[in-house]
This record gives sequence, structure tokens and C-alpha cells, in this order.
Amino acid sequence: MAQLIADRRDVDFVLHEQLDVDKLSKDERFAEFGKKTVDLIVSEARNLAIKEILPLQTISDEGCTFNAGEVKVPDAFHSVYAAYNEGEWLGMTDDPEWGGQGMPHTVAMAANEYFYGACNSFMLYNMLTHGAAKLVEKFGTDDQKRIYLKNMLSGKWSGTMLLTEPNAGSDLAAVEATAKPNGDGTYSLFGNKIFISAGEHDMVENIIHPVLARIEGAPEGIAGISLFLAPKFRVNADGSPGEFNDVVCTGIEHKMGLHGNATCSLTLGGKSGCIGTLLGQENKGVAAMFEMMNEARQMVGLQGFANASASYMYALNYARERIQSRELKAPATSKSVPIIRHPDVKRQLITMKAYVEGLRSLNYFCAMCHDLVAVSTDEEHKTHYEYLLEVLTPIVKGYGTDKSFDVCNQGIQIYGGYGFIEEFPVAQLLRDSRIFMLYEGTNGIQSIDLLGRKLSMKKGAAFNALLVEIKKTIADAKAVDGLEDLTARLEGFFSTYTEVAAALQVKSRSDEFLTAYAFSYPFMEVTGDLAMAWMLLWRAATATANKGKKKKDNIFYDGQIKTARFFINQILAATAGKMEALKACDNAVVEMDEAAFGSK
Amino acid sequence: MAQLIADRRDVDFVLHEQLDVDKLSKDERFAEFGKKTVDLIVSEARNLAIKEILPLQTISDEGCTFNAGEVKVPDAFHSVYAAYNEGEWLGMTDDPEWGGQGMPHTVAMAANEYFYGACNSFMLYNMLTHGAAKLVEKFGTDDQKRIYLKNMLSGKWSGTMLLTEPNAGSDLAAVEATAKPNGDGTYSLFGNKIFISAGEHDMVENIIHPVLARIEGAPEGIAGISLFLAPKFRVNADGSPGEFNDVVCTGIEHKMGLHGNATCSLTLGGKSGCIGTLLGQENKGVAAMFEMMNEARQMVGLQGFANASASYMYALNYARERIQSRELKAPATSKSVPIIRHPDVKRQLITMKAYVEGLRSLNYFCAMCHDLVAVSTDEEHKTHYEYLLEVLTPIVKGYGTDKSFDVCNQGIQIYGGYGFIEEFPVAQLLRDSRIFMLYEGTNGIQSIDLLGRKLSMKKGAAFNALLVEIKKTIADAKAVDGLEDLTARLEGFFSTYTEVAAALQVKSRSDEFLTAYAFSYPFMEVTGDLAMAWMLLWRAATATANKGKKKKDNIFYDGQIKTARFFINQILAATAGKMEALKACDNAVVEMDEAAFGSK
Repeated sequence: MAQLIADRRDVDFVLHEQLDVDKLSKDERFAEFGKKTVDLIVSEARNLAIKEILPLQTISDEGCTFNAGEVKVPDAFHSVYAAYNEGEWLGMTDDPEWGGQGMPHTVAMAANEYFYGACNSFMLYNMLTHGAAKLVEKFGTDDQKRIYLKNMLSGKWSGTMLLTEPNAGSDLAAVEATAKPNGDGTYSLFGNKIFISAGEHDMVENIIHPVLARIEGAPEGIAGISLFLAPKFRVNADGSPGEFNDVVCTGIEHKMGLHGNATCSLTLGGKSGCIGTLLGQENKGVAAMFEMMNEARQMVGLQGFANASASYMYALNYARERIQSRELKAPATSKSVPIIRHPDVKRQLITMKAYVEGLRSLNYFCAMCHDLVAVSTDEEHKTHYEYLLEVLTPIVKGYGTDKSFDVCNQGIQIYGGYGFIEEFPVAQLLRDSRIFMLYEGTNGIQSIDLLGRKLSMKKGAAFNALLVEIKKTIADAKAVDGLEDLTARLEGFFSTYTEVAAALQVKSRSDEFLTAYAFSYPFMEVTGDLAMAWMLLWRAATATANKGKKKKDNIFYDGQIKTARFFINQILAATAGKMEALKACDNAVVEMDEAAFGSK
Repeated sequence: MAQLIADRRDVDFVLHEQLDVDKLSKDERFAEFGKKTVDLIVSEARNLAIKEILPLQTISDEGCTFNAGEVKVPDAFHSVYAAYNEGEWLGMTDDPEWGGQGMPHTVAMAANEYFYGACNSFMLYNMLTHGAAKLVEKFGTDDQKRIYLKNMLSGKWSGTMLLTEPNAGSDLAAVEATAKPNGDGTYSLFGNKIFISAGEHDMVENIIHPVLARIEGAPEGIAGISLFLAPKFRVNADGSPGEFNDVVCTGIEHKMGLHGNATCSLTLGGKSGCIGTLLGQENKGVAAMFEMMNEARQMVGLQGFANASASYMYALNYARERIQSRELKAPATSKSVPIIRHPDVKRQLITMKAYVEGLRSLNYFCAMCHDLVAVSTDEEHKTHYEYLLEVLTPIVKGYGTDKSFDVCNQGIQIYGGYGFIEEFPVAQLLRDSRIFMLYEGTNGIQSIDLLGRKLSMKKGAAFNALLVEIKKTIADAKAVDGLEDLTARLEGFFSTYTEVAAALQVKSRSDEFLTAYAFSYPFMEVTGDLAMAWMLLWRAATATANKGKKKKDNIFYDGQIKTARFFINQILAATAGKMEALKACDNAVVEMDEAAFGSK
């Protein structure tokens, strides 16, 4: 069978050869997760993804239906939802106390790559439930945990995130929903929320909504926003869902993609009253949200990357099968060949491969950082990996979803005219992927986060953690036969990059901060390209080391080395040019008069 | 009223200030088209586009319906189709002998920008009719012209182009449709054609199909393909449509966008017999097609660019109205501002502006080349402009539609989450635009055309025509106060570019041709970036010269200069890096083993 969703050989390469996930099993908490178990888990996840979840993808495109406050997901979702939860996949990485599997994030990442790549709109229900559950776990009272957590991690109840309002998108300070204390520790919530993914649907018996709202009399802006938990149905004393809690779905959006996931408008407390309980501290709602934000953003990065990988697999299979035109300069009597043989198609494929594999390594590396935080006994180590996660999050989300969209776009191009036809899978992957660049903070916001917060975090120590890791890979690769040129090139690039980053950080805190922020996006882009080159050089070094061990793997390893060569010699050359622009920091954008953009 | 579709001020700038369209009216054939008339035409076109055609755009997204061989366009199309043809807009540039208006292409371009930007799927019906009519005009017998031409240019009958078959997409040599001589000068046609835009619909009384097919016994490959004309209804002696000609629509495609234009599968001669007449010479069908190909490809470039312009207008208006977040580093008590005030949003807008305006100038310049070919009395001049059109066509189509897609994508990003919602106009513009990168030769094919044909055409004389024009702009800009740095930078870039182009041309004809063709796409990209920089520098020089003439225009002119600065200092810096990769021509793509792309 042709590979679907993700190339298993490459998944295994990252898990076992690049990251050596087995090392985690030396720690007691991960002792069960030796290589054999890991391989079994990935195989099971892949099986479920290909056999059960993937068939939902086309169906999901037909969308959900809305009628009188009720949302129905496509019928086929129900049995797969049951199968997914029967396998206890939602709580892969969670605490067994609450029904989790206690699995390393790195292993869960491989499973999730298959799940999300199979059908993102189905998985988004699960992703939101998991995110909401983590909020309860982190900020909930014992009661809140007892009532909600097991039901959520088992998928019996689902979760959401009620942040956005018509006038509060990127700017949460503008949240207007209110909370009125009832005197018994509960609050009555009022407000209109929009763009609520999975806000209402018919796969579960209850939906748990974390809600940002202002307690009456709270300070203006961010400092007056609190977080609440409001279930769709109030929970009875015996834990069963009771009375309707007046969270009314008033409609679902007609979107460009991800149709299988209902994007709801919700009105809270418009009729019978919506009762919520405070989650965490008063007026600390946004801070609580932000603590979970990195993880949510990493998940969006995974969503994008998984679609990119799926698109690459489809395009590769198609390019190997589609016969069109004879080879360049072949005699007129020659037979037509599979299009993979045409150099421009190969260029497109290697471009897709470079980003997909670079992003795979980067996503898995972030998962590994989570695991290393968990097993570190040394505070310094722990902090190092925490810092890495802080700095890499905007890259994984902002840069990652941009490039994933580009990969999906290239996937369409490989299909030629067929790529535009919805009967083939690549158009939907592109449409579905467009939202990843927008939600959980637009990619512009990610670039501002990188420049404005992460670059200066802990006096630069967080950012330095990234530089240290890249330097390590460069130092290791220096000793590898055959990679001298590539390593030298990346080292030169890296050295310029560190100067540019330092200068931009200073500028962002100077009077010229507007100029610096006009370059936040290009800076995120060059940082992302650097991350890709780092990961691909690391892969090439690993491949060189393992070459010859198994003869049948040599072509795979050669492919790793050539992909790194392609990226560093070709793509990164353009990035180096972009870095010159970052050095110069021409001020045209800031100086441009708003009226000069066009007549009114 | 906010500007929609295109910024009229900028359209006028290109027509009158950059290209001086008025100079054409010195020629007898264009004597009627002085400035006043031109402005009137553009105003009328804009009026029709905004009031009549634009309202079709949302409706068009609901698509056409197919039932038992019949295709219905959305109801609202009919009256607008009538209005469009009542205005005689289809034949703007055509010979008055056949009902055309004899207008300069440059003026028609401005009108078309509004029309296509208003609703591309509606306009595609007209575009195909026009293309088919031009084939008849160029290759038809007197009889064919008499029977078809006026009816087509008046929009009474429409046209198509029957090239593609399931196994013959990019590779026309694989065409399998056949033509059997009937002994009376007519042929019986048999075959299945797919992806036929406007192949069947209910807006006209007859549809005229130019068809590529092989006469029985013809040579294999391209050399055995002829072009035929087959109407949907055979034409009676009195010119009225008669008997059904057995061109049966077997279905329409479910596409990612452009839903309002029916993409049909057609079966010819499956039942009662499809009678066609030869158009042009036997076995010269592909050559005939290719003579019309440049114009068709330029039209696709316009299709993309018009959507990009529309998306920019929407995004700009939105960014001026959408209030979100206070200014960077403003005190917490400050009010939120329109998002255009945020530097990263400004960066996005200026990026869109640079491409839209660069592409506008390039598209209009191509139209002007058509006109200069027409009015040239000097053979050398005429050839010069013909050469320019040859070389610029793959840029306008390949590079132009790539960048237009990117601009539409940026348009979505400016809208934030709303961009993903189909209630807003920007998502559809992106979806509609995706096909432009695929049809009339994929953009990969365009890059191969540029490298393989246009670079070597007439021993390089065609390509040299482009270099001469760019040099002229650089020389002119040198004399302009304030543009010294920009001009010097572009001059340096240009000098490297000419070296790179020369080396790549040599390589493409050497044993290393595979390597050269693995760089055809990046070469097209740098050529396109150069074309943008050329056009933007020309604009800046023109703006500098005209500054101060009317005070109210100074902000507009300043915007021109800053946009050029942004593009040349920021975007072209990355292009310069890409040119380094083109210089080095690393061979990784070619050396990559096909099996190394992924396991099977």
C-alpha cells in the first residue's frame, strides 16, 4: 500500500534515529514506553487514522448542519468518535489519575500526526476538549477536577474555548462578556461569543465551556478579565448532566474549509440564565489562558504540518503514477513518463519534502522538549527545555502553518488541473489549512510574540537556549564526512542571524520600535528557515552516521542528505538575501502615509 | 464610495502618466481614443463592473447546475450577460468589420481589469468566446468568418477551446480525439474532452467549439493534430442554429472555486454524429493553437491580477475600518485604533500594493506592446514589441498568477478570522484564483517556456528586447532626484541577472540541461521580481516628475516612491539571495533518486 498521511519510515527515523525517543524510557515515569511499545502505539494510531478517521475527510467537507440551536456533525463522525475514545487516545499524555495514558509527548506526536493528517476537522473536537481539560487540571479546584476531568479526557464530554467576540479578536482586552456573582460562589454569565470551534455538536452528552468574562466592577482591559467554566448542561450532584445552562448556539459559520468542525456563535445567559464557576483567580483569566496558549499554538502547528504531510504523500504518489510527456529532449518517438521524472516536478516535490520533514523534526523536537522538562531532575536542564518551547512556539505555529499552507498549495500544483477538482484530496487540504494561519493568534501576532516577548524573555536567556541547540547541531555536523560545505554554509548564516536578531531586539526596545515591528514577520520567517536548516542538517548528520547499517535504507539516507543540500544551498540562499533586508531595516513601511495606500 | 475592484487613481496613473496612452491617438486607427474618450470608457466599464457584474460574484459561488446534459448558469447571469453585450464590450479591441470597437488594447485592459475583478467566473465565458473568435478570424475561411465571427463577437454565440483529454493535459501530443473526412470537406469528430470551461451553458443560442483532433492516418504526436470548428448546433443556410451537433455534456466538475463557470466533460460524436470543419491547415492544429496561446495566457495573467487588485481594495478598506488593539507601546488607557496603524498590517498592505501595482503596470505595458505592434510602421519597432510580448507572456501568466494568489492570500490574513468566513469576499477571491496557476499551461510549463523557448528565441534577440527596456528605465531613473540609491541597487541586481540568465541559457543547451531545467522556476521567479522592480522604479520616476503639479496628488506620488523603496530594498533583497542559488546551480534535485522521495 502506498504511504498515506505520513511516511512511516520518516516518522520512525525522527523518533528513533534523530531524537532517540527510547532514552525517555530510562526514566521511571516512561519506563513502559520502550521502542517496541512505541512502535506498536504508532502502528495502532496509524491503523485507526487510515482505516477510520481518513474516510471522514471527504465526508467532513459536506459540513455540519444547524437547526434551531442544534448542530449535527456528519453522521459518520459518531462511530469513529466512539472508536477513538474507546482506544483512549485523547488522554495519551495525561496523568493516569484522570484517565490519561502517561505517554511521552514525543510518541503522542507521532500518533497525532496520523490522526490530524487524516481529518483535521474531526480531530479539532478532540483537540479543544483536551485543551479545556488541561485548563481544568491546571487551574481547577478539586471539585471542578472531580466533576469534569475524567469525563472530558474520556471524550464523554467535550470542551471548547470561549474567547472571541465580534470586537475582541486579536485584542482580548476588548472582551465584553460579563459575570455577575450569585453570592453562592457561582456566577451568572452574559455575553455573545463568536468563532467558537466545536461550540455545539451532537457527539457528546455535555459540552464544557471555559469562558473569558468580566466580573461586574472589574478593572478595564486585560486586568479585569476572569476565566469561568460553564457547562452546556448543569451537572447534577451525582455527576450526570442536568438542566440546560442557557448556552445557546445561534448559528454556525459558512467557511472556506474545515467544514466538519462547527464554528459557532454562542449566546450566554440570554434566557434562563447561564451559571458558571470561576476557574483560577479573579481577574487573572487572560494570564491563565496564556499559560495554556503555547500548547494550543503548538497543536495548531501540528494541525498545519499534518495536512502538509498528507498533501505531500498524495502528491508524491500522484507524481509516480501520472504519465505525461516524454523526458526533456528525448526523441519524439519516446514514451511518456511519470511526471516525477520531470526536473521541475522533482523540484516541487523536494521543496515539499524539505518543509514536511523539517517541520516533522521541529514538531517532534518540541514534543521531546515537553518530555525532557518532565524528566529533568536538574533545574537548569528543565529551564533550558522550557525556554526552547517558549521560543519555538511562534515558529511552530506562525512559520509552520505558513509553510504548511505553501506545501498544500504545491500539492495542488503537482496534480495539475486535477488539483482544482474537489474529487481529489489536495484542494480540501489547502482550504482546511487556511484557518491555521489565523486562529490561536494570527501569524502576525506570532511574529510580534517572537520579536516582542520571546526575544527579550529572561533577558535573552530563552532565545539563547535556541541558539545553543543550533550551535550544538552545527558542531556535531562539522565532524561528519561529506557535510563540510553544508555545515560551513549554515554556520555562516547562523552567525549573521545572531547579529541580526540582537540588533532587532535592541531596536524593538528603542525609539525605532515601529521600524523593528515592521520587520517582525520577516524576522519570524528567517528564524523559521533557520530552524528548518538546523533540523535538516541534523537529519543529514544522523543519516550519514547510520548509512550502511542496513543496505535497504541507503536510498532513504541519501535522500536525507540531498534534501538538506537542496534546502541549505537553494532555499536558505534566498533567506540570506532576506536577512540583508533585515540588517538594513529600511523604514519605508513606517513612513508610508496611511492615505497613500489608495484613494478612498 | 470606497474604491472597489481597482483604485481608479492608480489606473489613471498607469494609463496617462506612466504609459501615456494618449500618444496612441496620434495614429489614425486610434484617433477616436483621445484622453477624454479613454476616461469615459474606463468610467463606463467601472460602472458596469461595480453595479452589474460585481453583484454576480457571491451568486457565482453557488455554481452552475447540471441536469441530463444541460447546464444552467446562475439566473442572475442572464441579464448581466445581456447588458455586457449590449455595451459591445466583448469586441473592444476587434476589427469593426466584425463588429469590434477597434479600441487600443491598453484601454481595453483597464476596462477588463474592472470586469474580471468584479466576477471572473462570469467573465470567463466572454474570454473564451473572444479567444475562439480570434482563432476563427486568424485561421478561418471566408465562409467560417462569415458564419461565426459577428455572432461570436456580439455574444450571441459563445466559444470554447477543446484541447484537454484525460490523458492529454500538459502533453497535447497525447490527444486521441479523431476526425474522419466525410468527403464533402467536413469531418466527423469523435472523442472525449474534459476540463472544458464554458463547454455548455444556457446563456446563448449556440456554442462554437474549436477542437483538437487527429485526422485518420495522420502522423503520431503533435505533427498529426488538426484544429476543427464544431458548433453545438449545426448552422442552417440562413445562419440560424439548426440540428443538434452531438456535442454532449456528460457532467460538470465540482471545483475549489470559479463555481459560476461550468467546467464540462464533453463527448463528441457519441450518438448522432458531430460534424466539424477544418480550421487552418491539416496537421497544423497545435501550431495554430500556439499562435493564440500568448494572448490566452496574457488574459489568464489579467484574471489573476484583477482578483489580486480586488482583494487589495477589500483588505485596505477593511484595515481602515476595523478597530482592534491600541497602538504598540501606547498606554493601557489608549483607545484601540484601525488596524492599518499596526506596523505588521502596514507591511502586509504595502506588500499587496507593491505586487498589485507592479502587476498592473506590467499587464498594461503588455497591452501597450500590442498597440505599438499595431501602430508601428518601422519593422524593427514592431519586432521589438512582438519580442517583448513573447518574453513577458510567461512572466505575466506564470509569475503573475502566483503572486496574485499570494496577494489574495494576504487579503484573507488582513481580515483575521473573518477572512476564513465565506460571508466576506476575500476567501472566494483566493479560491477562484487557484485555477489561474494551472490552466492555459501550468506555471511550471510557463517557466519551461521562458527558459527553454523564450530565452533562446531568435538567438536571444527576443530576450534582449526585455533587457533593453529595463535598461532604458534604469537610465531614465538615474536622472531623477531622490531615486539614486534605488536605481543603483536595481542596476546592480540587473547586472547580476543578465549574467545568470546568460549562463542558464547556455546550460539549458548543454549536457547539464536537466540541472538548468531544475532551476526554470526560480529563474521565472527572479525574472518576475525584476519585472516588478522595473515597473515600480518607473512608477517612482514618473511620480517624482509629476509631484507638485497638483497638491492633492502628492500623497499618492509619495506612496509610489515608498512602494518602490519597499520592494527594491526589502523584497528584491531576498531575490538577490535566490539569484545566488541560481548562480551556484547545485544539482541536488537532479541527483535525487526518485525512490528517495519516500517509501512506497
